[in-house]
Amino acid sequence: MSTFGQIFRVTTYGESHCKSVGCIVDGIPPGMSLTEEDIQPQLTRRRPGQSKLSTPRNEKDKVEIQSGTEFGKTLGTPLAMIVKNEDQRPHDYSDMDNYPRPSHADYTYMEKYNLKASSGGGRASARETIGRVAAGAIAEKFLQQVSNVEIVAFVTQIGEIKMNRDPFDKKFQHLLNTITRSKVDAVGPIRCPDTSVAGDMVKEIEKYRGANDSIGGVVTCVIRNVPTGLGEPCFDKLEAMLAHAMLSIPASKGFEIGSGFAGVAVPGSKHNDPFYFDDESKKLRTTTNNSGGIQGGISNGENIYFSVPFKSAATICQEQETATYEGQTGILSAKGRHDPSVTPRAIPIVEAMAALVLADALLIQKARDFGKSVVH
Amino acid sequence: MSTFGQIFRVTTYGESHCKSVGCIVDGIPPGMSLTEEDIQPQLTRRRPGQSKLSTPRNEKDKVEIQSGTEFGKTLGTPLAMIVKNEDQRPHDYSDMDNYPRPSHADYTYMEKYNLKASSGGGRASARETIGRVAAGAIAEKFLQQVSNVEIVAFVTQIGEIKMNRDPFDKKFQHLLNTITRSKVDAVGPIRCPDTSVAGDMVKEIEKYRGANDSIGGVVTCVIRNVPTGLGEPCFDKLEAMLAHAMLSIPASKGFEIGSGFAGVAVPGSKHNDPFYFDDESKKLRTTTNNSGGIQGGISNGENIYFSVPFKSAATICQEQETATYEGQTGILSAKGRHDPSVTPRAIPIVEAMAALVLADALLIQKARDFGKSVVH
Amino acid sequence: MSTFGQIFRVTTYGESHCKSVGCIVDGIPPGMSLTEEDIQPQLTRRRPGQSKLSTPRNEKDKVEIQSGTEFGKTLGTPLAMIVKNEDQRPHDYSDMDNYPRPSHADYTYMEKYNLKASSGGGRASARETIGRVAAGAIAEKFLQQVSNVEIVAFVTQIGEIKMNRDPFDKKFQHLLNTITRSKVDAVGPIRCPDTSVAGDMVKEIEKYRGANDSIGGVVTCVIRNVPTGLGEPCFDKLEAMLAHAMLSIPASKGFEIGSGFAGVAVPGSKHNDPFYFDDESKKLRTTTNNSGGIQGGISNGENIYFSVPFKSAATICQEQETATYEGQTGILSAKGRHDPSVTPRAIPIVEAMAALVLADALLIQKARDFGKSVVH
Amino acid sequence: MSTFGQIFRVTTYGESHCKSVGCIVDGIPPGMSLTEEDIQPQLTRRRPGQSKLSTPRNEKDKVEIQSGTEFGKTLGTPLAMIVKNEDQRPHDYSDMDNYPRPSHADYTYMEKYNLKASSGGGRASARETIGRVAAGAIAEKFLQQVSNVEIVAFVTQIGEIKMNRDPFDKKFQHLLNTITRSKVDAVGPIRCPDTSVAGDMVKEIEKYRGANDSIGGVVTCVIRNVPTGLGEPCFDKLEAMLAHAMLSIPASKGFEIGSGFAGVAVPGSKHNDPFYFDDESKKLRTTTNNSGGIQGGISNGENIYFSVPFKSAATICQEQETATYEGQTGILSAKGRHDPSVTPRAIPIVEAMAALVLADALLIQKARDFGKSVVH
Repeated sequence: MSTFGQIFRVTTYGESHCKSVGCIVDGIPPGMSLTEEDIQPQLTRRRPGQSKLSTPRNEKDKVEIQSGTEFGKTLGTPLAMIVKNEDQRPHDYSDMDNYPRPSHADYTYMEKYNLKASSGGGRASARETIGRVAAGAIAEKFLQQVSNVEIVAFVTQIGEIKMNRDPFDKKFQHLLNTITRSKVDAVGPIRCPDTSVAGDMVKEIEKYRGANDSIGGVVTCVIRNVPTGLGEPCFDKLEAMLAHAMLSIPASKGFEIGSGFAGVAVPGSKHNDPFYFDDESKKLRTTTNNSGGIQGGISNGENIYFSVPFKSAATICQEQETATYEGQTGILSAKGRHDPSVTPRAIPIVEAMAALVLADALLIQKARDFGKSVVH
Repeated sequence: MSTFGQIFRVTTYGESHCKSVGCIVDGIPPGMSLTEEDIQPQLTRRRPGQSKLSTPRNEKDKVEIQSGTEFGKTLGTPLAMIVKNEDQRPHDYSDMDNYPRPSHADYTYMEKYNLKASSGGGRASARETIGRVAAGAIAEKFLQQVSNVEIVAFVTQIGEIKMNRDPFDKKFQHLLNTITRSKVDAVGPIRCPDTSVAGDMVKEIEKYRGANDSIGGVVTCVIRNVPTGLGEPCFDKLEAMLAHAMLSIPASKGFEIGSGFAGVAVPGSKHNDPFYFDDESKKLRTTTNNSGGIQGGISNGENIYFSVPFKSAATICQEQETATYEGQTGILSAKGRHDPSVTPRAIPIVEAMAALVLADALLIQKARDFGKSVVH
Repeated sequence: MSTFGQIFRVTTYGESHCKSVGCIVDGIPPGMSLTEEDIQPQLTRRRPGQSKLSTPRNEKDKVEIQSGTEFGKTLGTPLAMIVKNEDQRPHDYSDMDNYPRPSHADYTYMEKYNLKASSGGGRASARETIGRVAAGAIAEKFLQQVSNVEIVAFVTQIGEIKMNRDPFDKKFQHLLNTITRSKVDAVGPIRCPDTSVAGDMVKEIEKYRGANDSIGGVVTCVIRNVPTGLGEPCFDKLEAMLAHAMLSIPASKGFEIGSGFAGVAVPGSKHNDPFYFDDESKKLRTTTNNSGGIQGGISNGENIYFSVPFKSAATICQEQETATYEGQTGILSAKGRHDPSVTPRAIPIVEAMAALVLADALLIQKARDFGKSVVH
Repeated sequence: MSTFGQIFRVTTYGESHCKSVGCIVDGIPPGMSLTEEDIQPQLTRRRPGQSKLSTPRNEKDKVEIQSGTEFGKTLGTPLAMIVKNEDQRPHDYSDMDNYPRPSHADYTYMEKYNLKASSGGGRASARETIGRVAAGAIAEKFLQQVSNVEIVAFVTQIGEIKMNRDPFDKKFQHLLNTITRSKVDAVGPIRCPDTSVAGDMVKEIEKYRGANDSIGGVVTCVIRNVPTGLGEPCFDKLEAMLAHAMLSIPASKGFEIGSGFAGVAVPGSKHNDPFYFDDESKKLRTTTNNSGGIQGGISNGENIYFSVPFKSAATICQEQETATYEGQTGILSAKGRHDPSVTPRAIPIVEAMAALVLADALLIQKARDFGKSVVH
């Protein structure tokens, strides 16, 4: 469904060609300073048309808060946000009408809903993510006020071009400690902080744009200053909630946390993260962080970091041999301009979903903390 | 929490050293033949002590149905299942009492719950998965009766030893079409169907056992005969629910579906799965299956396949330099015998969690199907 | 929270003095004809200022669908609806600023949220119900298409003036079989179908209006043509969901279904509803309906009927001796014009909440029906 | 379904004729002293066969904790509890096999599940409530440790015999302030604290027992020392959760809180609860409590009190003219001994459900309290 979270909860709505897209965010603590200016920056980062790296559709994506605040402070009541759809062009996709686009959601929507919307895959549209990003910005502001939580996502791979993301490499761990959102943006719309490969990534995207093709990539995200104790054992482990959140983003195909797939080849004696006493925080910390900040489903206070692969965009402007809904073989020839790589634009969406997971887990744990503080 | 699913729902309980472990399964359709004999086989596959590849603790893990059936048929009411803990040995871990085991859940449980249980990480115990496997066996039987759904998981990597799981390789896709649970078990407890590498995998595990160490691995799972239309757009995409389920399994560190991480380097023109009309099923099918059976969060009827990495087990029998709960540096020297590789035993757990996700998604979609069939 | 329902689900937002109020409705079956014209009538029935019986604030309450439909048909995606707040007058309540209004939500909101909104009790405002009524209109249209479900609520008591609602009286049961929404409205804004008492009810309200006071009342609701089998045993019995829904309406203080409170004095031998075979429907029916259409938490196909008491409105325009937030004794003297009886306006809200409960229960049962039809 | 609560959550299982009944309680704060001795007393109060007022079936109902505690302290993990079914007698109901019992759940279970269990209405059995009572006892212990919350239910009506429960009567309000569970039990199994009518209530029950008939009653419950701020505006108002909980108890037909149905005839000027400053608690309190301790869905710190009617038991031992499942008219003649009034035994169930609602609402509010304490 379109609702995510238990205590800090977002419900989104909207597709490409309706009046507006947006969301209702419920469970925001009352008394928090909040205006559109807290939310717009991440929406703007998500917006297409920021550079020639992405689609030229110029949507302004200006958010309007409808409820839940007064005099710039949250009321504790549901906060609704709306972003108007200005560039609807409902007939632009008409050539595709007989063909379900390969690897898009047209066919599965037809199977599930028995209809073809002019927005094609309906909620599979990237515009659906606007509500998530808006809600995530609020979650993030709350997390910052709780314990200065920092969430930074960045591009670590475009096509074959990778930057180092080896979890066992100290340089990568150092980068996780120091990377900031402004450093990521400073590189330009490619959003890869490793300037030694960022240029090649841009070229890779341009190559596929030139060929009317598309290419995928990987987004890596780090969350710093996470309180210990977040996440529920068993089904709602913190990494399970993060995986759920990340795989719910359009075009994502996976998730790995900490040492991930690479870690399986490292024996326990090297993979285990030994403890030491940290004089600064007066708490136990670990000398390595192959766990990725979560052990037994519960945060241990180290950096949470994970990577998410995004497939090459399904909508491309070259001819594809495929079949119509009715089963007739033919050539689908899409028009319009399309994003050759959605990966850089996924950055604020990944950050938003991470923030939503954390804010909810944090509030749930605060209920638990109260409980344990009072019983005997 | 310990509850998973909306319409087909399981709630589990139990840790290593209490009286019993088990679960309540709610939402099972009434009138289905069901006895302990439907459930025991997967529990037995999960059980440790099956061979020298795993821990020699001999738990019998015999399931007892408490409610929800009569004369061998389900009643539609909650079905409770119990498995007694026979081999409790609550003092076996006493040497560790002062040390949180590195990369285990001891420290995070202390942070979350403020206590040390004799079962150490409490619900982080592998015994917690018994309830999942029991519930999954019921979900699986239901799915078989619905549309002959087949769920087969197998080991594709142990340490550095891999079998081919290249999604773009036709041989691998053929294996996904043909692999069965009995073929997997026929190879022996290693559960890798590629006999050209299975022996090396066994040696890899033996090598780490000999070194009192542990090693990780990857489990791949295929689900065949999935009805189209399952999964909810937006947050509860079918792959998001699967990722949630898989990352909730102890020791799992990731998830990738279809082309996964490898797919990001393949351009859209090659990655897209073109449609063709299948004369047998009289439906559209795809010529390739890089999507992994899900598009836009909704099943398209092709095989769903995914891989899950399991880290090297945290509990090892060699000395580890680490710190006590109080922060004092020292040497943790664990005793007892421990599983050098949990990966082969994860097979029935992966299958169970997949079945639980599918059964719930299927029932929800049947509600939707009714809705669309009646409105106008 | 502000979300209700599992498979057919509404999330509402908005308070009196923000930009708009509204809701997101998720889980609407795709392909259903739906425009604003299906929704507006119930919103108009809910609207204040319809007659001198209610508050003269003239809010137009015009609903705008934002998403989820195309060419007048639902898409199966979330349908967002917005109603602008035109008559905000945020300073109208300024005299009350130091006093929490007795029996209103001002004090409890302060305790819960630690703030005073200019909308006083925030979400305790009657405008919060706009989203419910809009969502309910959609649920109702769906239910009509499923099995011609009819939901009719009406006023059965204002202050001391009651119409017959004795569940053991055949005339009342006959009225439950025959009452329609148009008959209810034909009587005028008092919405009591018994013309022998409706005039006295109007006078009762006028009496309290003249005294700057308020008076309560009772709404009774009947639901006809309910399919059998709806409702879940144990916690989510159909009457439990209805009670939850009704007690969530502002100012409601209770709920009784079927014979209700009066039924406890009738022995089982008379209270039991015997079965007979109905030649028309070819099903078992009951000769009496003291159960109110639900047995063991599950609908039996008879009329579901229940009553809900609404207390006298808390906001009155006469002086009240009470205390300020700071605890100082004083006189609260509210200004403005206020509704002397909210009961008649509660009619569409009761109908909406009943429709939401039924639509969700129906869809869940259709999932169950599929399950039982396929297993063996 | 069989799960109730979000953060403090119970899932129950079991019917009359299976191996055991019980529940899993999730979300119990860790570190709380808890053994079977905390739970057994309420189970014993619920147990039939305590006196000739109820059914002579002698079930021992001894609870066994399976998990979630160690050395008499809760672990924070799910706590499973089992009560064996000793007195199963699955064939005792054989005469009824062709007849759905009037006003019982046999017919609706057949419609919903398409089967007849030997336990007849399956989960509609009173034994289903054992899991609730066991879970409620834990919730209650937690609430006592939080703020000395006291929950006391008692019988206020049997058939036509009523004790004073007029919310506007000071004596009744005094009783609400002072009634204790031991005072209730001191009167004997009738559990009506007004000794001037308790004897007549006993006679009333005996009268119907002598006639092989049954009679209903009303249970009133008070909850004292409730923290302010509990309950969520909109759909999950505290009274809505309580109503949901109470209507989920078998045989209940209604709910009223505070002034309830009687309050509708009292004008706002008299019904409103004025505030005063309480020197002892240093908080605002109200001079009257017609609201029943909840305003705008949120607790205000005053006593929460409500009443629940229970219908006359459906199973009676006299002949009833009705129809078979197949529609043939005939005489149903039930055998066995049956409870002529379930009302006194409902006392611990009402208390348990109230405790479950409160414990969950309290934990959720503590999450909110944290949020508001930290934001700016």
